[in-house]
Amino acid sequence: MIKVILNGCSGKMGKVITEVSSQFPSLEIIGGIDKYPIECSYPIFKTCDDLTLEYDVLLDFSRSEALNDLLILTEKTKKPIVLCSTGYTEENLKLIDEKSKYLPIFRSANMSLGINLINSLLKKITPLLYGNYDIEIVEKHHNQKVDSPSGTALFLADTIKNSLPVETNFVHGRDGQKKREKTEIGIHAVRGGSIVGDHEIIFAGTGEVIELTHKAISREVFAVGALKACDYMGTISEPGLYTMDNIIDL
Amino acid sequence: MIKVILNGCSGKMGKVITEVSSQFPSLEIIGGIDKYPIECSYPIFKTCDDLTLEYDVLLDFSRSEALNDLLILTEKTKKPIVLCSTGYTEENLKLIDEKSKYLPIFRSANMSLGINLINSLLKKITPLLYGNYDIEIVEKHHNQKVDSPSGTALFLADTIKNSLPVETNFVHGRDGQKKREKTEIGIHAVRGGSIVGDHEIIFAGTGEVIELTHKAISREVFAVGALKACDYMGTISEPGLYTMDNIIDL
Amino acid sequence: MIKVILNGCSGKMGKVITEVSSQFPSLEIIGGIDKYPIECSYPIFKTCDDLTLEYDVLLDFSRSEALNDLLILTEKTKKPIVLCSTGYTEENLKLIDEKSKYLPIFRSANMSLGINLINSLLKKITPLLYGNYDIEIVEKHHNQKVDSPSGTALFLADTIKNSLPVETNFVHGRDGQKKREKTEIGIHAVRGGSIVGDHEIIFAGTGEVIELTHKAISREVFAVGALKACDYMGTISEPGLYTMDNIIDL
Amino acid sequence: MIKVILNGCSGKMGKVITEVSSQFPSLEIIGGIDKYPIECSYPIFKTCDDLTLEYDVLLDFSRSEALNDLLILTEKTKKPIVLCSTGYTEENLKLIDEKSKYLPIFRSANMSLGINLINSLLKKITPLLYGNYDIEIVEKHHNQKVDSPSGTALFLADTIKNSLPVETNFVHGRDGQKKREKTEIGIHAVRGGSIVGDHEIIFAGTGEVIELTHKAISREVFAVGALKACDYMGTISEPGLYTMDNIIDL
Repeated sequence: MIKVILNGCSGKMGKVITEVSSQFPSLEIIGGIDKYPIECSYPIFKTCDDLTLEYDVLLDFSRSEALNDLLILTEKTKKPIVLCSTGYTEENLKLIDEKSKYLPIFRSANMSLGINLINSLLKKITPLLYGNYDIEIVEKHHNQKVDSPSGTALFLADTIKNSLPVETNFVHGRDGQKKREKTEIGIHAVRGGSIVGDHEIIFAGTGEVIELTHKAISREVFAVGALKACDYMGTISEPGLYTMDNIIDL
Repeated sequence: MIKVILNGCSGKMGKVITEVSSQFPSLEIIGGIDKYPIECSYPIFKTCDDLTLEYDVLLDFSRSEALNDLLILTEKTKKPIVLCSTGYTEENLKLIDEKSKYLPIFRSANMSLGINLINSLLKKITPLLYGNYDIEIVEKHHNQKVDSPSGTALFLADTIKNSLPVETNFVHGRDGQKKREKTEIGIHAVRGGSIVGDHEIIFAGTGEVIELTHKAISREVFAVGALKACDYMGTISEPGLYTMDNIIDL
Repeated sequence: MIKVILNGCSGKMGKVITEVSSQFPSLEIIGGIDKYPIECSYPIFKTCDDLTLEYDVLLDFSRSEALNDLLILTEKTKKPIVLCSTGYTEENLKLIDEKSKYLPIFRSANMSLGINLINSLLKKITPLLYGNYDIEIVEKHHNQKVDSPSGTALFLADTIKNSLPVETNFVHGRDGQKKREKTEIGIHAVRGGSIVGDHEIIFAGTGEVIELTHKAISREVFAVGALKACDYMGTISEPGLYTMDNIIDL
Repeated sequence: MIKVILNGCSGKMGKVITEVSSQFPSLEIIGGIDKYPIECSYPIFKTCDDLTLEYDVLLDFSRSEALNDLLILTEKTKKPIVLCSTGYTEENLKLIDEKSKYLPIFRSANMSLGINLINSLLKKITPLLYGNYDIEIVEKHHNQKVDSPSGTALFLADTIKNSLPVETNFVHGRDGQKKREKTEIGIHAVRGGSIVGDHEIIFAGTGEVIELTHKAISREVFAVGALKACDYMGTISEPGLYTMDNIIDL
C-alpha cells in the first residue's frame, strides 16, 4: 500500500482527489497539508514543516507558489513528489529540472491519462498511416474559451507533424474552391454551450475511417491522472524527471 | 399500386432505382425508357415516343437534355412527372416553372429525404432554441471535393439563418484569441479519404447538447428519395410544382 | 421583466439556478425561500408565510414535502407556479391535478428542454420514416446506474412505439443467428465510467442514416429547463396543468 | 517499383484494386490473370500457366479454388504471394501453412488495415487502462446481417479479453435492475438500413472517455489492405506465413 500525502487537500481539486482515491486499492491518502484544514478522513497539517507522518509519495495539487516548501520537504525525505499545480514560471521549471537530477520528480503538462495515451498512440500510428490516410482534428469546447484551437489540439497536432517525414501545414477551417492537399492537417475548433472538451483525431482513408476520440467529462479526469502518477512513482526510487510518457510505455 | 415509368433506366442510377423499388410495396416500375436498353425485368422503350404503356407517374433520372421530350409526353398523358436529373439551365428551370401551372411536376434541389427532413426540423427548432443554444455545423466529405463548405451545409446554414430574428454570420473555422460571439454560426469542413458525406448540426446549450446528424452511405439514398416522390405524386392530380417539402409536411 | 421567487434557493440546484438565471435577460430572481438562508444577491425568506415581495412566477426546486405550503401561497397570489421537485407521491400528484383546475401550474416529468424537444420531434418524424427506415436507440450512462435501459430511453421508445401504425417490440441487445425484423426497435444500454447521460436515436435507411442525439453535461440542464418554464409561465394567466410540451409547440 | 501480377483482375474486387493501385506510387500492376479478360491498362493472361511476365509479388483476390495453380506458379518463381480470397477449407489452410515453410506467403483473416490496426492498439492499451476504465463495444451493420455480434466485434472483444489478467464475460445488451460489474464487457449490435460496418470500442473512465472507432465505407478498404500487403511483401524474401500484424509492427 502506497502512503500518499496530499498538499492542497482542502481545495476543489483536493476534495475530488480524496473522493476518487477510493478507486485505487493500491494507495491510500494518509494525510494532507493545507493552510485551511477542513473536516476530513485523514489528519491535515497546516504547513510542510508541520508534517509528522512517514509517507511514500508527496502529491501536490495546489498552486505554483508552494513549490519551494515542497522541494525542501522532498530533499529531507528523498521520497518521490508528483507536481500537478499549474502556472509555473520559467524559473520554477528550471528549479524542477535541476532538482530532478537527485530527486524523483513527476510533472506533466497535461494530467489526463487519456490525452497522453492518445498522444502516444499518434506517435505510433501516424507514420504507418500517412500517405494513404488524411488526418484531421475536430475539437469542441464551451463558448467561454478564448483560444482556438485548444492547447491540447495543438499538442496533438504537433505530435502528428513531428511523426511525419514530410513538411505539413495546419489548416484552421475551409472556405472556398480548393481541393485538400496531401500535406494539410485540418484543425477545426467548435465552440458552444458548456461542452467540457472533446478531441477527435480522424484518419480518413480509401474505404475506411479510423478515429481516436477523447471526451472530458469533469475535473475528476485530472484526479485519476494524479493518482495514477502516485501509483507509478510509488515504485520509483531513482532520481529523474518523470512524465505521463513513463506511465504510458506502450 | 402506382405504375411507374422510369426514364434513364439503363444508367447507373436507373439500375439502383430498379433494385431499391422492391422496398416500395405501393409502387411498381412497369416500364423504362432508354436509348441503350439493357436486360431487365420490365420492357424498355428507346424514346418517349415509343412508349405504349399506360402509367401513373413518370420518373426521370437521366440528363437535363431529356426535359423537352419528357414534358411533351406529360402534356399528352397529364400524369405527374418526377424530375431528378441535375444540371438544369436557367431556361430549363423557367420552362419547368411555367409548365407546372397546368401539370403536376415534382422537382427538388436535393433528393435525399433525410437532408430535407433535417432542413424541415431546423425551421421548427431553431427559433425555439436560439438564445440559450449555440449553433455549429460540422460536415465531412472525401478529399476530392472542390467546394468548402458543401452545398448541403450552406443550404442548412441558410435555413438556420432565415429562422432567426437576429442577424447572424458564418464563421468557417477558428484560429486565434477570441471568444465565440452569440451571433456566430460556425461551419467546419472536414476533408479526407473517401467519406461519402456527413452533416452534423450541433445545438450546444448550458448543460446539454442536441445534435441532428445525417450520414450519406451511397447513391441509393437518391433512389429512395425519388421513389418516395413517386409514391407521393401518385396521389396528386392537381397541377403545381411539388418539392420534398410537400412530402415532409411536419 | 418576469419577477421570480425561488423556493429551495440555498440547495445545490438552487445555487445552479441562480447562476444560470443571468443567461435569461427576460426574467430576474427577486427573492428566495429557504429554511437555511445563504449569502446571496437577493433577499431570502425562511418560509412561504414570511414572503413579503410581489412576484410573477413561483419556482420550486426543493423537495416534494414543500408542496402544501407552496400551493397555499399560490392560492393567495393566483400567480403561476413551476414545480421541479421530484419524488411526488400519488396523493401529491392528485392534489396538483385538482388545484390546476383553478391555478396555473407547470410540472414535467423530465425538466431537460433537449429531451422533451427530441421527444416532440420523434412524434413528427417517426410516422414519416417508418417502413423505409429502421429505428434503434443507443444510450450511455455511468457504471453506477441500476436500471437498464434508462427511464429516458424507455420514454423515447414509447413515443416511437405510439407513433407507429404497427405493433413493434423492443429488443435489448442481440446475440445469435437471426436477421433484424422490421417490427423491432433495438435499445442498447452502454454502461461505463462517469458518463453523465447520452441518448442517440438512429433512423437507418437505404443509403442514409439520420440521428437525433442528446448529451447531458451537467445538472445545469435542469436549471435551463426550469427557467424556460418560468419564462413561459410568466405569460400565462389561465389555470391549467402545463408541461414542457406547451413550451415546445412545434 | 514493385511489379505486381493480379489474379482475378476482371472480377469486382479486381477492378477496385486496379483503380486504387494508382494511390500507391511504390508499386505497379504490370499484368493480370483472369479466365474472362476485360479491357484494361495492363495485359491479361487466361491462366497462371500462360503468364510470361517477370514479377515481384503475386496478388490473389479471386476464389479459394485458384489456390493450387497459384502455389505451383509461386514454387516456380519463389516470389512472395498475397492471398486475399476467402472461403478456404481446412485442407486449403493446412496446405498454405505447409508451403509457407519454404515460400513467403501473406494471408490475413481480415484485410482491413484499420481493423487490424485497432486490434494492435487494443493489445497495448487494454492492460494499461483496465481497472480504472470500463470497456464496451458498439457495432453497427445493415439489416440483412445474420450474425450478431459481428465477427469483427468478437475478434476485437477476444483481443481485449486475452489482454486482461482477470476473467471477463461478454454481455450482449442489458435489460433490468442490475449495476454493471467490473468484469463485464458490453457488446451491442445495432442493426439497420444499409450501414456498411462501424465498430466503436469505448474505454469509459472517471471523468473521461477514450474511444477507438472504425467505420467501413466501401469494399475499397480491402483493396488498400491488399496493396499495403504487396508493398510489404515486396521487401520480403524469407519464407514464412505473414499477416497484417507483420505490417502493423507498433
